[in-house]
Amino acid sequence: MKKVLIANRGEIAVRIIRACRELNIETVAIYSEGDREALHVQMADEAYCVGPKLSKDSYLNMTNIISIAKLTGCDALHPGYGFLSENASFAELCTECNVKFIGPTADSISKMGTKDVARETMKAAGVPVVPGSQGIVSGIEEAKEIANQIGYPVIIKATAGGGGKGIRVAKTVEELEKGIQITQQEAQTAFGNPGVYLERYITDFRHVEIQVLADEHGNTIHLGERDCTIQRRLQKLVEEAPSPVLDEATRAKMGEAAVKAAQAVDYWGAGTVEFIYEPQTNSFYFMEMNTRIQVEHPVTEFVTGIDLIKEQLKVAQGMKLEYKQEDVSLKGWSIECRINAENPDKNFMPSPGKIITYLPPGGPNVRVDSAVYSGYTIPPYYDSMIAKVIVHGKTREEAIAIMKRALEEFVVEGVYTTIPFHLKLLQNEIFVKGHYNTKFLEEHELVTKR
Amino acid sequence: MKKVLIANRGEIAVRIIRACRELNIETVAIYSEGDREALHVQMADEAYCVGPKLSKDSYLNMTNIISIAKLTGCDALHPGYGFLSENASFAELCTECNVKFIGPTADSISKMGTKDVARETMKAAGVPVVPGSQGIVSGIEEAKEIANQIGYPVIIKATAGGGGKGIRVAKTVEELEKGIQITQQEAQTAFGNPGVYLERYITDFRHVEIQVLADEHGNTIHLGERDCTIQRRLQKLVEEAPSPVLDEATRAKMGEAAVKAAQAVDYWGAGTVEFIYEPQTNSFYFMEMNTRIQVEHPVTEFVTGIDLIKEQLKVAQGMKLEYKQEDVSLKGWSIECRINAENPDKNFMPSPGKIITYLPPGGPNVRVDSAVYSGYTIPPYYDSMIAKVIVHGKTREEAIAIMKRALEEFVVEGVYTTIPFHLKLLQNEIFVKGHYNTKFLEEHELVTKR
Repeated sequence: MKKVLIANRGEIAVRIIRACRELNIETVAIYSEGDREALHVQMADEAYCVGPKLSKDSYLNMTNIISIAKLTGCDALHPGYGFLSENASFAELCTECNVKFIGPTADSISKMGTKDVARETMKAAGVPVVPGSQGIVSGIEEAKEIANQIGYPVIIKATAGGGGKGIRVAKTVEELEKGIQITQQEAQTAFGNPGVYLERYITDFRHVEIQVLADEHGNTIHLGERDCTIQRRLQKLVEEAPSPVLDEATRAKMGEAAVKAAQAVDYWGAGTVEFIYEPQTNSFYFMEMNTRIQVEHPVTEFVTGIDLIKEQLKVAQGMKLEYKQEDVSLKGWSIECRINAENPDKNFMPSPGKIITYLPPGGPNVRVDSAVYSGYTIPPYYDSMIAKVIVHGKTREEAIAIMKRALEEFVVEGVYTTIPFHLKLLQNEIFVKGHYNTKFLEEHELVTKR
Repeated sequence: MKKVLIANRGEIAVRIIRACRELNIETVAIYSEGDREALHVQMADEAYCVGPKLSKDSYLNMTNIISIAKLTGCDALHPGYGFLSENASFAELCTECNVKFIGPTADSISKMGTKDVARETMKAAGVPVVPGSQGIVSGIEEAKEIANQIGYPVIIKATAGGGGKGIRVAKTVEELEKGIQITQQEAQTAFGNPGVYLERYITDFRHVEIQVLADEHGNTIHLGERDCTIQRRLQKLVEEAPSPVLDEATRAKMGEAAVKAAQAVDYWGAGTVEFIYEPQTNSFYFMEMNTRIQVEHPVTEFVTGIDLIKEQLKVAQGMKLEYKQEDVSLKGWSIECRINAENPDKNFMPSPGKIITYLPPGGPNVRVDSAVYSGYTIPPYYDSMIAKVIVHGKTREEAIAIMKRALEEFVVEGVYTTIPFHLKLLQNEIFVKGHYNTKFLEEHELVTKR
């Protein structure tokens, strides 16, 4: 692998450029007309405009992207996260054009991307799933019948959804009738696929996910869990590794389940199997698999010492994994805070605009992944993340103390940021104790209720 | 310990503030009139002007510093490195004023600070020393006699010197006669002590040093070595851990010698025992002990996972070391590059002035310790260090690759920096192979010869 096109923007594009440089691989960046001043454009060896500001015309423009890859002689393409990273057709197109897609096969992506199919595949592979419908529900009548069997509340999920989108809860039969219809319509609009399925709605749970890593030679390992229970409107805000509530035996069981899940779809590369974890019963259920690198991958890198992007690049070159399961050991505690250009006092309203001063925190045990700089104007067209601050301590208590000092010294002037929110959270007693579920922020009024 | 005065400036002051914050200890900064805009002033909880621009009137002004410590209710004082950090009288003054000096006792400092006494103490403790005079030489005649015994070239060292100052080589009897006189005069002027001693001048050697850590309860451990062979005019430019040339047995022997050295002067806190290492004979000799934290301490932090400043703060509170020797294991490879505001093309001429743009490198396995920011003006009164870039890889090869990409993305505009020098060094074949001595840079014309 000599030259990689990075089909993404922002911090993950920068992250991939860094890994490529360290492996002596050339990089080609793409950018929209709204991203001319972006850091990933300045850092890559080459950079080409791929289309207008809106993502659908640029970062989602498959033919333009693949044309640039071919014209610049790239032998591989890294999709990052979001955009085309879980688009099976795009992975297919790359393969057809003889550009190695750095990720699993189109077939693995589809099997996991179609959520109802994934559920059935997991059930068959012996991975626990939440009780629910068998595949897509045919209509309201079938939905009512299933809901009666599994009990209310139920959750309606678009089979093509993911990342907190295309999801709706129904507490009563009336809400179910309405919910099915709306979710189907929304899913048709958003994903071009109206199919929905039902699951029992588990309300008191933690989001715990397992990082897996597999090569093209049948070796699959897991790198422990990340706890992403701190969420606002199903969007993760803080992630950590390990989980404050998982015991060693459950970690091992969940890890084995994740490896089974990956193997069931002949997965390779880096991927994440997300689970619903119920601490009160110590049981877990498959939620979904993200067939790509995740925003929160650095916490796993800190506790395992393994560079996941480099591993993706190595696996995509056909190399065998350097690590066996027994080589993986977890050291210390890592926490990531996603810092967004949003006003936490105004219901997290996005705050794009010009960053007048930017000085990231430094010193020991702090890592910052970012794509902004003093004088950079955050465009309003994309997500509002400014930086990920990731820390590593010997214990959770130390990691929290390091994060606190890091965020206190982080200077971002010119736009609102979520730093004050994170500082408040880090001092919250319940957060410090580590016992909460995914509704914690809303129930403790750290964020406004919906 | 509730409140610490930091008797220093620049990156080490910032480093100490960070550690204090993480341990929930308040900080008081001091600054000279030339340092009003300094980052350590902005980051500390309180900050007080301690005197005029020149160090002798401010950062070396013992009574002013101790007054501020008392007036602000500090129960301890951290001296950092340089300035008053190895001044036994100052340590004594702190103790008299009931302000805990974060370092060893005045007695330990003197025993190591008086270089000829240190030599004799080490010899008595069974630590190998370079053949030379027994204590201070009385005059030129005695010097000649000793030089004849040990053979030319010899090195003349001021007993009060250190850090590359108060040192002169003599290859002939004529040079010896002149050298003794000049070094005595210089030492009188610089350190107020004209005493000099002689050693055989070993020309082909590496600078390898051992980090030690001791508590006030008699526990002393070592944290492996740092190799600081890359020097220009006796100033370290690049440091790494472990050393590219030390084998496991020699590492253990050198570590034991360093522990003996520390114990011989009843040392506590963090300290460094510096050795001359001859790869061709696999032998090492005591050079000196630095009774303080060192600039290059982060490479040890990366390979051991131990925060040395936090350990200093804990030991100073009378706590026992958390670690036993067998708990210390070295993981991977760490390299530090000192980035100075100097023009490497103009014989490293200092380049103070305003930094227009400053964007430190980020991402995995990179740490930056710095005290500058966009818009900051580097004053001409102090040292020219802008930042320390420290990286951690699984192997030396990986660490070099990470350093290369980190320095390539480091943006400093407005002043000259030594980044281009470091990038050239990182690509030098001999450096990459790891086999060189302290004269490497000059002999390979990476820096101008003296």
